Amino acid sequence: MVGGGVTSAPPARDRHPGRPRVVVVGGGFGGIEVAKGLRRADVDLTLVDRQNHHCFQPLLYQVATATLTSSDVAWPIRGIVGAQPNTTVQLAEVTAIDRTNRVVHAGPASWPYDYLVVATGATHSYLGHSEWSRFAPGLKTIEDAAYIRRRLLLAFERAEVATDPDEQRRLMTFVIVGGGPTGVELAGAISELARHSLPLDFRRIDPQHARILLIEAGPRLLPALPEHLSAYAARVLARKGVEVLTGDPVEAIDDDCVRTRDTVIGTDTVIWAAGVAASPAAKWLAVPHDKSGRVEVMSDLSLADDPAVFVIGDTAAVQDENGDWVPGIAPAAKQMGEYVADVIRARVAGRPAPAPFRYRHQGDLATIGRRSAVVKLGRFELTGTIGWLFWGLVHVYFLIGNRNRLGVAFDWVWNYLTYQRRSRLITLDRVQGSDGEMKVAAPSVPPND
Amino acid sequence: MVGGGVTSAPPARDRHPGRPRVVVVGGGFGGIEVAKGLRRADVDLTLVDRQNHHCFQPLLYQVATATLTSSDVAWPIRGIVGAQPNTTVQLAEVTAIDRTNRVVHAGPASWPYDYLVVATGATHSYLGHSEWSRFAPGLKTIEDAAYIRRRLLLAFERAEVATDPDEQRRLMTFVIVGGGPTGVELAGAISELARHSLPLDFRRIDPQHARILLIEAGPRLLPALPEHLSAYAARVLARKGVEVLTGDPVEAIDDDCVRTRDTVIGTDTVIWAAGVAASPAAKWLAVPHDKSGRVEVMSDLSLADDPAVFVIGDTAAVQDENGDWVPGIAPAAKQMGEYVADVIRARVAGRPAPAPFRYRHQGDLATIGRRSAVVKLGRFELTGTIGWLFWGLVHVYFLIGNRNRLGVAFDWVWNYLTYQRRSRLITLDRVQGSDGEMKVAAPSVPPND
Repeated sequence: MVGGGVTSAPPARDRHPGRPRVVVVGGGFGGIEVAKGLRRADVDLTLVDRQNHHCFQPLLYQVATATLTSSDVAWPIRGIVGAQPNTTVQLAEVTAIDRTNRVVHAGPASWPYDYLVVATGATHSYLGHSEWSRFAPGLKTIEDAAYIRRRLLLAFERAEVATDPDEQRRLMTFVIVGGGPTGVELAGAISELARHSLPLDFRRIDPQHARILLIEAGPRLLPALPEHLSAYAARVLARKGVEVLTGDPVEAIDDDCVRTRDTVIGTDTVIWAAGVAASPAAKWLAVPHDKSGRVEVMSDLSLADDPAVFVIGDTAAVQDENGDWVPGIAPAAKQMGEYVADVIRARVAGRPAPAPFRYRHQGDLATIGRRSAVVKLGRFELTGTIGWLFWGLVHVYFLIGNRNRLGVAFDWVWNYLTYQRRSRLITLDRVQGSDGEMKVAAPSVPPND
Repeated sequence: MVGGGVTSAPPARDRHPGRPRVVVVGGGFGGIEVAKGLRRADVDLTLVDRQNHHCFQPLLYQVATATLTSSDVAWPIRGIVGAQPNTTVQLAEVTAIDRTNRVVHAGPASWPYDYLVVATGATHSYLGHSEWSRFAPGLKTIEDAAYIRRRLLLAFERAEVATDPDEQRRLMTFVIVGGGPTGVELAGAISELARHSLPLDFRRIDPQHARILLIEAGPRLLPALPEHLSAYAARVLARKGVEVLTGDPVEAIDDDCVRTRDTVIGTDTVIWAAGVAASPAAKWLAVPHDKSGRVEVMSDLSLADDPAVFVIGDTAAVQDENGDWVPGIAPAAKQMGEYVADVIRARVAGRPAPAPFRYRHQGDLATIGRRSAVVKLGRFELTGTIGWLFWGLVHVYFLIGNRNRLGVAFDWVWNYLTYQRRSRLITLDRVQGSDGEMKVAAPSVPPND
């Protein structure tokens, strides 16, 4: 063995054995805010995530529909907080939390803590039908987005090769389940992909004739918004050729069709944008949870029986001042992260605790496609081109890193002017060679149902 | 079943049953040139590829080292030639070529031809050791590049979590096998990643102390260039901390070490940049091939016993006017593609055949890292900053699409100024959850050896 020059001992520069140890599990919107909020605190901070990147989930649907690339909406966690002298970033998947001895475990690695923040987010919930996850991928990670992009683009490719008209029809039918912001945004974006970006490039099919269906079990789209904005979104989608089915819950999904209460739709491509479930943090912590798996926390976001452990973001069940549940959205997770950083800073400094956490709802917004969006901020409402521009500015502003802001803005302008989708790439885990037909393997992440 | 509105019959607009049918297999540099060259010819052209994108292989190493994204170096084939009215693009993997009946098969799909162009490129050759492919991925596709990027970044991440100094040392040792342009470019880029982009972000390891070894079996790096340029490249690499081992062939590779004739190197990350083998076109065509699998063709690039079938690019064995073999590089494939389009146009129009194919060697160039490259164009040589700028301009110029030209140029300037790598993303096919350790699955493409 040739000797190496690797420094294996931890560089002593930033380690202070006496300082309180803070472990943050999860590098999403909540976890990142905690780490940033503690950057000047006199603590040793360790941020553990099973991914090396923070993902800007509100724009994932644009990766799935080939407008943006993964790098546009994801940023290495080390690039955000890795240079903070008191912070160590660790890529590992947490396997257990030992509250008695105050240690977080990830296989052979472990990190003792004085304060623990669990910010592990949410995943898809198939409402008790975990078998649907095989046929109807959801959209939470950049792997999910790349997988959905492959499925969408490959459906058109397979239709172009197919000779059976029934098969072509099935391949060119796209079903989105769930009429919240993600479902609305996906339906609008798929319609524009089919009607504007692809048509010239195919000979044997006409992508403009693709069927796109958006299925919502409840009575209307975008239930968080007032009724007239839901109606506006439905009208814009109809104009884009999207068939909107409301009040019609899905009853079955398999590999070539979706059955709702009222109809059966032959399709090869179903996207799940309906339910979410909290990550299994309640199990790790051995604490009670609500029916979507969220951990109930005190008014300072710590556990009732363990003030050293905080749970934030989509994993926490928190009520606002009206007694409503705080929604599982990025601004809420960020507010909780900032708040917990305040609490820990106060405790470490021996200052009195800050006032109880109070959620400030900033608004709701969803884009429906080129020059149409719905925005509601307090009593202030926007639709159409103005709403769309506002939506774009807000999203660019909240992206992390000037590189990504510039990149996304440039991609949007380019796409707007040329209709070109720069990321129309099908990257195959495996090309099925033997029968000549193209398939892609699903990311083998088990559903959390 | 709800009725659909899909137009399933082929739109009649561009189909002319009497026109000669040209089938091109492969959308690389050669196949794309054939399709472009025939865009105004009175033929029905079908381009079949198993990927939906054309890949600019000369820049793949920058995707593998996180400077560029996949979308920067790959472009949908439909976006290049899909809008030509006489062209149909089909995503399918060719399974057989029936020369008797003149039909190309891909599973259930098939395309009859009057002229066939086989442009299926090359893949890695492990020089008779196909078992090495498991441990030492090569760099030919964007999937390969994404996989190598994961492996590189994950090695640093795992070293940061590891507690055993021997394991840290092994994880932070990187071996590149093969001292041609790809090997030199990879070694330089990995050195810059370790020494400039990563150091601030780690606490428990110092990425600057990573060991990077470049192993070449022959007597010197870059054998296609004159000796003094090889020596220059070796000096620049040494200055970047790369250990260059020449005249030292690899004898064994397994999952934790590489053994050469002279030494044993403990490592988790080996990249194969040594041998290439032609695609199995000779087998499909049932024609003789040379020892790297290339098909010998006539002076018009057609088969000796079948003037309707052409073989071009890395799949063809062609001699230049000095009797040397034409190298397997992009400009050679493009020249062959242009030439075959000329031949087919002449035959279809009943004009006399063009003069035999003649390869014009434009030059050799390789970049070694920031502000150093070697360039030789005829008697004209460049090194250092000027060579590096020239190399960059040439590569941006030959990219397809202004979007990619702008994107790549912007990423390079950004990276040069900030040392940030925008694509430092580890996308995992599967995170190994049970033991908490991170691993990635290799793309399951079988080696072609």
